[in-house]
Amino acid sequence: MAIQQKLSLMIPGPTPVPEKVLQALGKHPIGHRTKDFQDLVESTTKNLQWLHQTQNDILTITGSGTAAMEAGIINTLSKGDKVLCGENGKFGQRWVQVAKEFGLDVIKIEAKWGSPLNPDDFKTILEKDTEKEIKAVILTHSETSTGVINDLKKISTHIRNHEKALSIIDCVTSLGACSVPVDEWELDIVASGSQKGYMIPPGLSFISMSDKAWQASEKSNLPKFYLNLKSYKKSLLNNSNPYTPAVNLVFALDESLKMMRDEGLENIFKRHNRHKLAISKAALTLKLKLFADENYLSPAITAIEIDDINAEDFRKTIKKEYDILLAGGQDHLKGKIFRVGHLGYVNDRDIISVVAAISNTLLNQNKISSKEAGEALKVASNYLKIN
Amino acid sequence: MAIQQKLSLMIPGPTPVPEKVLQALGKHPIGHRTKDFQDLVESTTKNLQWLHQTQNDILTITGSGTAAMEAGIINTLSKGDKVLCGENGKFGQRWVQVAKEFGLDVIKIEAKWGSPLNPDDFKTILEKDTEKEIKAVILTHSETSTGVINDLKKISTHIRNHEKALSIIDCVTSLGACSVPVDEWELDIVASGSQKGYMIPPGLSFISMSDKAWQASEKSNLPKFYLNLKSYKKSLLNNSNPYTPAVNLVFALDESLKMMRDEGLENIFKRHNRHKLAISKAALTLKLKLFADENYLSPAITAIEIDDINAEDFRKTIKKEYDILLAGGQDHLKGKIFRVGHLGYVNDRDIISVVAAISNTLLNQNKISSKEAGEALKVASNYLKIN
Repeated sequence: MAIQQKLSLMIPGPTPVPEKVLQALGKHPIGHRTKDFQDLVESTTKNLQWLHQTQNDILTITGSGTAAMEAGIINTLSKGDKVLCGENGKFGQRWVQVAKEFGLDVIKIEAKWGSPLNPDDFKTILEKDTEKEIKAVILTHSETSTGVINDLKKISTHIRNHEKALSIIDCVTSLGACSVPVDEWELDIVASGSQKGYMIPPGLSFISMSDKAWQASEKSNLPKFYLNLKSYKKSLLNNSNPYTPAVNLVFALDESLKMMRDEGLENIFKRHNRHKLAISKAALTLKLKLFADENYLSPAITAIEIDDINAEDFRKTIKKEYDILLAGGQDHLKGKIFRVGHLGYVNDRDIISVVAAISNTLLNQNKISSKEAGEALKVASNYLKIN
Repeated sequence: MAIQQKLSLMIPGPTPVPEKVLQALGKHPIGHRTKDFQDLVESTTKNLQWLHQTQNDILTITGSGTAAMEAGIINTLSKGDKVLCGENGKFGQRWVQVAKEFGLDVIKIEAKWGSPLNPDDFKTILEKDTEKEIKAVILTHSETSTGVINDLKKISTHIRNHEKALSIIDCVTSLGACSVPVDEWELDIVASGSQKGYMIPPGLSFISMSDKAWQASEKSNLPKFYLNLKSYKKSLLNNSNPYTPAVNLVFALDESLKMMRDEGLENIFKRHNRHKLAISKAALTLKLKLFADENYLSPAITAIEIDDINAEDFRKTIKKEYDILLAGGQDHLKGKIFRVGHLGYVNDRDIISVVAAISNTLLNQNKISSKEAGEALKVASNYLKIN
């Protein structure tokens, strides 16, 4: 079976998994109603709080990041509630769909794909809402589809000033890649997923709930069972789960969170920032265009536009020749952009390799000169040296 | 860390996982939007159909068995729909809770915990429903909390005769332990979970949907997003998933289903039957009581009542002395029964070991004689020899 040769995963999830974490994953399962498993839940919960920089409850759900975002929405809101949704990419779009499916009254704040949401748009609408009809603001921090990071720090200030509205934030590709100080920014609900900065395979998602979010949950009337977070909270008091959790993924999570603690938050964020700069600056050196606004580049993923070459063909060539898997564009961006994931367990060699692969592929297609290819490597390696 | 010594898991899930499957689980993940992963989805789906003895669609969800049962209910029914729920244990109870949470009008058919549901009760109510108001019949095939198997074959006949009502069946601990011929019994919705007969760790659940179930889904008005099965069906046409699936658990699933095909359905069912008989007959020889009606013993789990000894203490002694993990009683049965899981990757040695452990613990507590202990082993080994 040719499924696994020596693949380099440079997509925005699943991301590469350290050997130690894979070994933990491949252990024989244990009972989920045992003291040994409770110890794991206690340890991972404590380390999740460290990663989120919060004292809030953090619940672990067996499901994707979408399940966690849906849980945040349906546990705190009620039919007909007015919500403000930021939409500047595929994931922003998805949360609008979820909100509508559950009968919420959606006001959209849009920005062009590739541009960040404008914090002033939130400020204006929230300040006008003197009747406090807006119950929540829903948005995506790092928009995986476009490589844009939204200015959550500023937007969260406007949400706090409103006082009534909850913040429900998709931090699926920002958590573990850049600082998301949940307590400092007073974020009420933060959702994330295991196959991203957490360095473990997909299957778990995480949801951080503030006291204000729990208070709102008392009034929420949307039907839910598997995703009813009160059941998870009740079980967590006993370091347990309401339904059988993905035990082996929790083994892996425990190991990866320990590795993250060893590296340290600041070092993790600096590493992602270095990698983002190395790739984006190298791309510019190669005369490629960044799809995202250069002042709002996601620390997790860089979307690159490529003229007169089909981006799908380009990334397939790189897969074939170097066994590096890049992501394509989604929806209308298919064939127009490719996306380089640099999230989670990624080191400097992975970055220089992908720059070399991109450069060499352009060189082989006579799109650039050897000098330009060499300059791209030099630019990337210089950025890899910054602290 | 004392988490994993040489544990023998004899609980009704997580169940033991074969080495080969653990190795597949511990492989480096691949992209879930690749041809390699599509090949895996195609292969596992085909083998899931084989295991379910059906041509129906079988969808794989990242979540627990509860998520799959909820999905079955909320995708095919609408608020206010009348449903008939069988309840003779903790899981039957749970589906009543789910139905009520989503505003369904529940008629309960109950039997005492430890007794099977009476198929005639279903017949009577379904025959009386000449207006065809009952939209679905929801029940649990193997009731994990009590060790009872309900007579699904007979009950499904009554459901078919009604013509209108869908069957929504929890086969979480029956699938892979005994025959569940989905096409022959015309079961509309069948839910199951990975950490059971499938021999893989928890995290995936499966849902088989008949054409009639899909037709019903067109009219269902209950809100759902992550568990909206239409999205899974649409993706499955392309051997894909709507949201990032638990890729590594799918590696494991592919391996375990291949092992199951190698063993063959009939052999798997015979093995579970042998193990059920060996344990239950040995327990009777030891003068222990079976909690479940002896004519309706689950092939997956045997619940044993134990007089004048606290069942929790008893199973803790067996864990401490032999590192065999048995399950306790749930809710009001805690301390009154212990449960021996014999589901999935279990061989004859596991069975004779647990009989030896139970016998010896009783012997050490002067509850039985050496002769009785020896007789229990003999009875068990005789049943292990049957075909």
